[in-house]
Amino acid sequence: MEKRHVLLIDCPDKIGLVYRVTSILFKNHLNIIRNDEFVDHQSNHFFMRTEFSGDLDAPKLIADLEGLGDIDKGHIRLNPRKKKNIVILATKEHHCLGDLLIRYAYDELDANVLAVVSNHRILQPLVAKFGIPFHYISHVGLERRAHEEMVEKALAIYNPEFLVLAKYMRILTPEFVRPYSNRIINIHHSFLPAFIGANPYKQAYDRGVKIIGATAHFVNDDLDEGPIIHQDVIQVSHQMSAKDMARAGRDGEKIVLARALKKVFQDRVFIHRNRTIVF
Amino acid sequence: MEKRHVLLIDCPDKIGLVYRVTSILFKNHLNIIRNDEFVDHQSNHFFMRTEFSGDLDAPKLIADLEGLGDIDKGHIRLNPRKKKNIVILATKEHHCLGDLLIRYAYDELDANVLAVVSNHRILQPLVAKFGIPFHYISHVGLERRAHEEMVEKALAIYNPEFLVLAKYMRILTPEFVRPYSNRIINIHHSFLPAFIGANPYKQAYDRGVKIIGATAHFVNDDLDEGPIIHQDVIQVSHQMSAKDMARAGRDGEKIVLARALKKVFQDRVFIHRNRTIVF
Amino acid sequence: MEKRHVLLIDCPDKIGLVYRVTSILFKNHLNIIRNDEFVDHQSNHFFMRTEFSGDLDAPKLIADLEGLGDIDKGHIRLNPRKKKNIVILATKEHHCLGDLLIRYAYDELDANVLAVVSNHRILQPLVAKFGIPFHYISHVGLERRAHEEMVEKALAIYNPEFLVLAKYMRILTPEFVRPYSNRIINIHHSFLPAFIGANPYKQAYDRGVKIIGATAHFVNDDLDEGPIIHQDVIQVSHQMSAKDMARAGRDGEKIVLARALKKVFQDRVFIHRNRTIVF
Amino acid sequence: MEKRHVLLIDCPDKIGLVYRVTSILFKNHLNIIRNDEFVDHQSNHFFMRTEFSGDLDAPKLIADLEGLGDIDKGHIRLNPRKKKNIVILATKEHHCLGDLLIRYAYDELDANVLAVVSNHRILQPLVAKFGIPFHYISHVGLERRAHEEMVEKALAIYNPEFLVLAKYMRILTPEFVRPYSNRIINIHHSFLPAFIGANPYKQAYDRGVKIIGATAHFVNDDLDEGPIIHQDVIQVSHQMSAKDMARAGRDGEKIVLARALKKVFQDRVFIHRNRTIVF
Repeated sequence: MEKRHVLLIDCPDKIGLVYRVTSILFKNHLNIIRNDEFVDHQSNHFFMRTEFSGDLDAPKLIADLEGLGDIDKGHIRLNPRKKKNIVILATKEHHCLGDLLIRYAYDELDANVLAVVSNHRILQPLVAKFGIPFHYISHVGLERRAHEEMVEKALAIYNPEFLVLAKYMRILTPEFVRPYSNRIINIHHSFLPAFIGANPYKQAYDRGVKIIGATAHFVNDDLDEGPIIHQDVIQVSHQMSAKDMARAGRDGEKIVLARALKKVFQDRVFIHRNRTIVF
Repeated sequence: MEKRHVLLIDCPDKIGLVYRVTSILFKNHLNIIRNDEFVDHQSNHFFMRTEFSGDLDAPKLIADLEGLGDIDKGHIRLNPRKKKNIVILATKEHHCLGDLLIRYAYDELDANVLAVVSNHRILQPLVAKFGIPFHYISHVGLERRAHEEMVEKALAIYNPEFLVLAKYMRILTPEFVRPYSNRIINIHHSFLPAFIGANPYKQAYDRGVKIIGATAHFVNDDLDEGPIIHQDVIQVSHQMSAKDMARAGRDGEKIVLARALKKVFQDRVFIHRNRTIVF
Repeated sequence: MEKRHVLLIDCPDKIGLVYRVTSILFKNHLNIIRNDEFVDHQSNHFFMRTEFSGDLDAPKLIADLEGLGDIDKGHIRLNPRKKKNIVILATKEHHCLGDLLIRYAYDELDANVLAVVSNHRILQPLVAKFGIPFHYISHVGLERRAHEEMVEKALAIYNPEFLVLAKYMRILTPEFVRPYSNRIINIHHSFLPAFIGANPYKQAYDRGVKIIGATAHFVNDDLDEGPIIHQDVIQVSHQMSAKDMARAGRDGEKIVLARALKKVFQDRVFIHRNRTIVF
Repeated sequence: MEKRHVLLIDCPDKIGLVYRVTSILFKNHLNIIRNDEFVDHQSNHFFMRTEFSGDLDAPKLIADLEGLGDIDKGHIRLNPRKKKNIVILATKEHHCLGDLLIRYAYDELDANVLAVVSNHRILQPLVAKFGIPFHYISHVGLERRAHEEMVEKALAIYNPEFLVLAKYMRILTPEFVRPYSNRIINIHHSFLPAFIGANPYKQAYDRGVKIIGATAHFVNDDLDEGPIIHQDVIQVSHQMSAKDMARAGRDGEKIVLARALKKVFQDRVFIHRNRTIVF
């Protein structure tokens, strides 16, 4: 099979953009296999993801695209690394982490798990089964930034492209988040109606919700507020205690996180303002 | 087929309650067809819904149940009216109202629709098709309570057991709600995460949600805050505008409202604190 | 707002097709608003749906596209009629028909309902409410083709683009279907696992399924076998009788049919072999 | 917390059964915590699952229940073993097995995984991570029964209460199934409409389904035909290849299997004819 390439473009919309971009692919003798486009008409912004095959001269293609004069260099991405290098951060819960490790063991994650960092020891035996470095960095007795700086030091060893928060129960400071802008993915329980604050499953139970959900999203300054990548829900009933709901919610969380990561790691997700375009 | 009866009991839990209640049914030669029970162990409260057949002496059965000494008279309901008398309140949107009217026309609503009240004229032709009284009571130029009093006057004609808010876009005062305590059912769009305030679909769009939902609930003092009866969701994508989302949301709203009403009108719903028990 | 146009192309795939087509749009000073493409790599077939705005010279655009030499005239559709002319066929059940009529009354169907044809009288009062011609054509005492010929005669009055089978419980002969090839849409209950033959809800109940579904599809020779447009499911339980399941299934059927029709009538559906491409 | 007990009764329905059974619990000073009942009115069969607390004299309770004269001894189950002893059978796919092993490692499975049996070697490293015996029993060159007898010999070591077929791709003979009647649970992909025979995902793709599903069921003589325990579905689209569908389907399969096992292992499932009653 011929090698597949991926081209990602996002830039202000202009008449003829699809034509101009595809003409360059054509003139470079490249064959489009799958092409997704979207124009956000509110902000007049253009998004395009093209899978193509053929004999690629990458510098020439990028030069040709820049030559159009329509697309800033910063908005062209050609062949991002196939497997993303990631570090997973977790706390005590194993369901998302375990699911990701199994997928990783069978090469289904589109990523290399370089390490797991946790502020508790409890997940160490699970991580050890998969032969992945585990960094236990307790937050006990530390100021938030002091703890984060220790985490940053551990991360520096690995230089990950993405951080995956697999039920990492720490609030992150803007200082921590900034260098990983749009490169941190979190999984968040969520409900109809949504509950803010401590013990959301208890709140959901008290409110008598009939549905619980899970939301995978990018993290920006506010932990639970970045662009949403994927969401799903599970039906619950009055028979279920807050604990039962939490248990049911975990299955949703692990599947939603895995699907969101698949989309991100396959370069199918654009971030625009506070929304995602998912191809 | 033998006549079916329904007995509803909710009271503080005690050892032997199921035994005591069913022994009375047995001694009255009544045959249980379906029995649902639930104990809320947080509040130690007992809920029981029994369908039974047989030759019923209603005053004797109730006297026997009261004779147990465990259940207050106020917590025994025997054979609530099969078809509830209801008035539907709506504003401009037709999707929930139209769905209910079709179901009513085919006797699938477990209710008699006595009238429709609206603060706009626009739904009059739809209601007229089904030969149901339509009360147009404009709120223009009126204080909230003054408008509500006019609605109350219209409702007084019909003495409805339940009010159904089928996209009635008016905030209700506690004065209006109180006499219909636990007898007003509302349908509310809802989202993950939830949005409060004006134009929620616009907010949902801006936030880039991947799921929109609908929640049917009883109304207490706070319009959007009473016990939830039923909820469901619909998947959406970045391709959909705020208007597309609203359109998709309407299908969810009408189905969720209809299912919630079915449960309520079939006497399958208990309200306890801010939760429902749905059998 | 500028007038929007829709261009639909489906043809064997070739290198440079997106480029060639979009270049022609560009050279005609037409602005792409939304572009969807798909290549079926199994059959090497190309599908493209483009919404664009601008000052359209339709004959010139089509001539230019044909001039490419890649796309047969028969595979270019430009600006199909916005509102499709349809006739609805039904039997006794009102749920799908009622839902479509309400949507039609509020101009949400993307179609003109020219008439309703039924082999029973029972739906006549419902159709009358909406002021639409109702043709009662009983099948009693008639051979299948004799009955169909009477239906064909009624249809001939209206010359509909699409026939919608809204729970039309008659098996159609190939003679009837052929002239409406890919223009008949049916709604079919369906289950996991699927049941064939009479009384599927009874079969589903006996099998103890936990999910019932609905499938909207095009009709080809075999009534329940054409390309699927949309599907959805509803959870059921052992508490539900076959009748309860049928009742719950109806809500699914009406929503699934409405969504499928929306997609088809907005020219978002291509048929290829026995599959649909839905943009 | 007081010890909880579980009583399961299923027998022909009679007037007064709930009363009789609960009277015996009451007279034994036992306190019902949760009570579920169901009567199948088609077959006139009664099902009851009662959780209760209190000072249990088990032989006396069973003698009292038998003394009623309504319930055969064989239809009373008191306090089934809390954690079921199980053996998992798998072939090459890891997704269900891996998910179960993680749950088991965190004591969330309500079961002891005594061993894993496979007709391939490929899952051995995964099982080894969790310190569970792995029996590789190749079927190559063996008659079906000869292979099964080798499996039976391995199973004899463990005397499991349940066999879990976690994507075990072997057809089982009635000889193998019989001794485990109602004690084998299988996970089966399934579709709307359902596909029989080889390569169902390919068939589903060719048919252009928009939904794929998963069904967990007991196994009787026919591998894919026993009583259904739980089902769920996943939405798919024309963009997905048969391989993509299979990948998406796996997430459904593992969650559906885990939920079904939870219900079975918590003694919440009755089998009656070809249906399940799930409390």
